[in-house]
Amino acid sequence: MRALVLFSFLLVGCLAQRPRKCTSPPLLTGSFSVSTQSERLMAFAKFSYDALGKRIRLREIGSYDNKTFHGDVLLLYREGVMFHINYRNRTCCKKPLNVDFHPLEIPQNASLVGQVVVGSSSGPGQGVLVNTWAGELQQKQGTAKYISTVTEFGCIPVSSLFHTRENGWVITSFFNNVIGLVDPQLLLPPPFCKDAQLEDTDGEEPVTFFSLF
Amino acid sequence: MRALVLFSFLLVGCLAQRPRKCTSPPLLTGSFSVSTQSERLMAFAKFSYDALGKRIRLREIGSYDNKTFHGDVLLLYREGVMFHINYRNRTCCKKPLNVDFHPLEIPQNASLVGQVVVGSSSGPGQGVLVNTWAGELQQKQGTAKYISTVTEFGCIPVSSLFHTRENGWVITSFFNNVIGLVDPQLLLPPPFCKDAQLEDTDGEEPVTFFSLF
Repeated sequence: MRALVLFSFLLVGCLAQRPRKCTSPPLLTGSFSVSTQSERLMAFAKFSYDALGKRIRLREIGSYDNKTFHGDVLLLYREGVMFHINYRNRTCCKKPLNVDFHPLEIPQNASLVGQVVVGSSSGPGQGVLVNTWAGELQQKQGTAKYISTVTEFGCIPVSSLFHTRENGWVITSFFNNVIGLVDPQLLLPPPFCKDAQLEDTDGEEPVTFFSLF
Repeated sequence: MRALVLFSFLLVGCLAQRPRKCTSPPLLTGSFSVSTQSERLMAFAKFSYDALGKRIRLREIGSYDNKTFHGDVLLLYREGVMFHINYRNRTCCKKPLNVDFHPLEIPQNASLVGQVVVGSSSGPGQGVLVNTWAGELQQKQGTAKYISTVTEFGCIPVSSLFHTRENGWVITSFFNNVIGLVDPQLLLPPPFCKDAQLEDTDGEEPVTFFSLF
């Protein structure tokens, strides 16, 4: 009888270890690459992410339809503005940001695809345990499928696949993430942005970090 | 002067830590998924890999052109034969395997793309350090690009991209690798293969684990 009770407790303990939908650390600095199945887009970005202050800084370089582009944007969701920053020319373009801040997290209606070790669990430093989740996001154009992978320990983003009508699957791979802000100043508008006037952007849709998810 | 010498030694030490082309452990058990940019192929396989005995067992399930398929093959490179195994019907099809065994390794002419942490280095169990290599393989149809990622510690395969004319990029993602053979018996032909006659396969090209690389 005692063995049965012990077994039940063990079983409950094991069941409780089923991966949970999680939220990534509120302060995160890292990089990601984005590429599309259509091969139209290929980009590489460094990001600073502050879920407490609802701020994101993205500096990216890439190519779209074989044309290279650079981007440097600061998204301040609490103020509802975004800055397109050009350090070389010291110019700044301020636009309204009328979307809600979405923290980096696994949505509540996501389904667990599975838990695997990337690399190996046979030796120290040889692998990392990750959980993969899938679901659908409601969008203006209808629902869009996504598959997101995060680490079991720390809920650090690893990769995300997002299906778009235009370019098929969009693959985002995260790397070199550290918890915290390596340079908090990147989340402040640079001095030459002080006098930027808010531009009107009727009909334009702001591109955000999260339109990639 | 002594500081300079010390600095030189430190410098040499750091330079020596540049990622090296490596060979994966000779005994490896794990899984991988394969998918193509064209979305024609999507497969999932479990493998047992023995570079000492030059043997590979692959059990896969997948879909090609929306038709599902199962596969169970044992590749014995030293004997120059491969077995297509059907456990349900207890049938076995023995074919010649006239290709050399290629160990899981980064080719000597590969170029380092970069070293990154997948996940995060901020906490234990949150990430894994990986090296990405790129190069070209000589094939009958010409050269083919590949991009391979392995862990820095242990040289465990993580992913590989291989470009094919027919299906664009072929993406292989490895996971749940363990060093060693979980079931060494999987690398022996099952008893009902004993009487299998060697079939003639003129013109047929054997599909191998490594045609994916």
